[in-house]
Amino acid sequence: MSDKLRLGMIGFGGRGIGMLKFALLPLSEEEVDLVAVCDLYQDRVEEAQKLIEEKHGYVPFGTTNYKDLLTMDNVDAIIIMSSWESHVDIAVDAMKAGKPVGMEVGCAYSLNDCWRLIHTYEETGIPCMMLENCCYGKRELMILNMVKKGIFGDVVHCEGGYMHDLRDEIVTGKEKRHYRLRNYLHRNCHNYPTHELGPICKILNINNGNRLLSLTSVATPAAKGLHEYVISRKGADHELANVEWRQADVVKTNIICANGEMISLTLDTTLPRTYSRNFTVRGTKANYFELNDSLYIDQQDAKYEFKGKEMWGCAEKYEEEYLHPLWKGYTVNDGHGGMDTQVFRAFINAVKLGINPPIDTYDTVTWMSIAVLSEMSIAAGGAPVAVPDFTNGKWMERTDIVDQKYGLNKIIEIEE
Amino acid sequence: MSDKLRLGMIGFGGRGIGMLKFALLPLSEEEVDLVAVCDLYQDRVEEAQKLIEEKHGYVPFGTTNYKDLLTMDNVDAIIIMSSWESHVDIAVDAMKAGKPVGMEVGCAYSLNDCWRLIHTYEETGIPCMMLENCCYGKRELMILNMVKKGIFGDVVHCEGGYMHDLRDEIVTGKEKRHYRLRNYLHRNCHNYPTHELGPICKILNINNGNRLLSLTSVATPAAKGLHEYVISRKGADHELANVEWRQADVVKTNIICANGEMISLTLDTTLPRTYSRNFTVRGTKANYFELNDSLYIDQQDAKYEFKGKEMWGCAEKYEEEYLHPLWKGYTVNDGHGGMDTQVFRAFINAVKLGINPPIDTYDTVTWMSIAVLSEMSIAAGGAPVAVPDFTNGKWMERTDIVDQKYGLNKIIEIEE
Repeated sequence: MSDKLRLGMIGFGGRGIGMLKFALLPLSEEEVDLVAVCDLYQDRVEEAQKLIEEKHGYVPFGTTNYKDLLTMDNVDAIIIMSSWESHVDIAVDAMKAGKPVGMEVGCAYSLNDCWRLIHTYEETGIPCMMLENCCYGKRELMILNMVKKGIFGDVVHCEGGYMHDLRDEIVTGKEKRHYRLRNYLHRNCHNYPTHELGPICKILNINNGNRLLSLTSVATPAAKGLHEYVISRKGADHELANVEWRQADVVKTNIICANGEMISLTLDTTLPRTYSRNFTVRGTKANYFELNDSLYIDQQDAKYEFKGKEMWGCAEKYEEEYLHPLWKGYTVNDGHGGMDTQVFRAFINAVKLGINPPIDTYDTVTWMSIAVLSEMSIAAGGAPVAVPDFTNGKWMERTDIVDQKYGLNKIIEIEE
Repeated sequence: MSDKLRLGMIGFGGRGIGMLKFALLPLSEEEVDLVAVCDLYQDRVEEAQKLIEEKHGYVPFGTTNYKDLLTMDNVDAIIIMSSWESHVDIAVDAMKAGKPVGMEVGCAYSLNDCWRLIHTYEETGIPCMMLENCCYGKRELMILNMVKKGIFGDVVHCEGGYMHDLRDEIVTGKEKRHYRLRNYLHRNCHNYPTHELGPICKILNINNGNRLLSLTSVATPAAKGLHEYVISRKGADHELANVEWRQADVVKTNIICANGEMISLTLDTTLPRTYSRNFTVRGTKANYFELNDSLYIDQQDAKYEFKGKEMWGCAEKYEEEYLHPLWKGYTVNDGHGGMDTQVFRAFINAVKLGINPPIDTYDTVTWMSIAVLSEMSIAAGGAPVAVPDFTNGKWMERTDIVDQKYGLNKIIEIEE
């Protein structure tokens, strides 16, 4: 067991249990040791313990107080999968206790909390990596690879969204003890920006020679979609039938980067629709649209000449030449097509080697901050809001984030 | 010839000649009489005269001075197809001369010009109808029909774009005497918003119980796509290789309506891509995406139950039930699939009946104004800009725009 990374894991709601079943337990065969589990609720602690016991025959340490995990000598690193609001407190405490943090995707509630994570990292040297699985998506990595090879020319616009019909999850939040319900009742912002923003930031070298400079956000009226859903599915007597939702059905955010590129984000979670992250990359020489999986290269050679309707869905045909090295021959399905396992491996690898993770503390904070910045802009009627420079100027010359095996920043070097 | 509408037509560049060939000449068999033609350039006047002579055996009156047409007693109405910058001057003069105006799609350069059109209409009672052909698109009208029937529930968000690779047209603007070149060299705004905005405004009852309230616009850097195109296709010695373009490759505009709905617009004309208007309508009960022609109705009955990939392209299956009456059995192809003919017929019908056209002066001005308002917002770093109420409050109770045969506002009444 000595070359396995020993994990303490916090938060076993839907996502935590899913991650345990489909990514952490499979990884525990060779790469990690599941030492300790924690949740605010005892029944969830027991569920996690039971799943680990069934696999390995031992019961890991369990607690409802996350601080217990931070004093355990046999915990090398902490995985945070708890509610969004709890992420920063737990991460800061873990970093101060010398435990590197892998933190599930989430959002910030104040700029002060963002800075707290930065200062803790800079004071302790212990990193916090957002486990942004979509950075490791098959298409996202293929397009990143193509952009780094220059196929897209200058990338001038990227677009993405978290477009996911979450009406059932939100409306049943009380039974499921789910944090989204309270967020939709009380906040109005792009509350979940990182699935689309993370991969785009890697494409645009954010915090590595570029940075997010300013944004504007606007919103539709408060969740008419949820209201319609409650009335039509649960009835006019349901306890959520007459609440005043604050979260808009659709939030649009446009970010301008220091180098001039625009990033357009959409939150779209309470109207009927199919899932999409709408990953879109527009360069002077090529473009990619996720919605119909189309890739168009300008002045393309005959090999890749698709016209009109043939173009729809043609991105697959570029896989042989441009699939990212991490995806060559990779067939794991962990419930999200293999992304969860990839992002965990990147975290494990960085902690074991003692290197800065490919999604580092500056990336984590920059991406989370969009939630609170969008809230500020919406509250001000769509006024432009400046994105803080969380690196304090280091972004201009930062080139230190190189992870040869699981990197996102230096793809070209990996292959040469 | 007495029950034909007698037209004077101004502007025979690419669009004007196209309209003549594919829409006006076919319509001249039964519905219009092509009495007079005008262009700033004599060769274009002669080209138009020749096309009409070939069809009808007579040479219509030709001139390089549009004012000549306004004094002709045998001209019932004026069609403006000239450069964007000339639209308002010509329209105002025509209206003052008592000639109803059908005005090609374009954009405004100042709010004062917008008000000039409004005041001229209110003083003369002569209407100016924007010939926004996309309002008559097959899919746009089908979705309008479905929205008016309540299938979409509350519509809370609409999206659209003018997404058209115009690099060749712009770069060859000097040879072709095309107005786009000077606009791309000098302005930075959403310079062509009405193709997507028009159909959306009809869906959201703009100027009929709702209005456009405010917008924010942001832009990528100035036309990197055009620069790359000139260098790679025309060479570094081309006269446009070192110009400073002002127009951004991509402009994003979010409009908020008085009733809270959001309209998201995109201008995207100088990067490689396939054509799209990205027509998107999001309601509490259904959505439509043009990019993959998908229509999803929530809680749908078995007849329309599409799941996952089956949904892609499924909108066609709703045509039998929901195709707009104007499109039932309609198979004209005028180069834009029949839309050009439809919008002309709507204009002709309104003028003949002496009724307010289905796209009236208030609509025309409201839609054009987005160009100059987006320019103001971009210039102010994305700051919110108020959209003037061009109706001066009349939008709250306006219900007078009913055109039983070619209407856009009262679809339900047409069928019942």
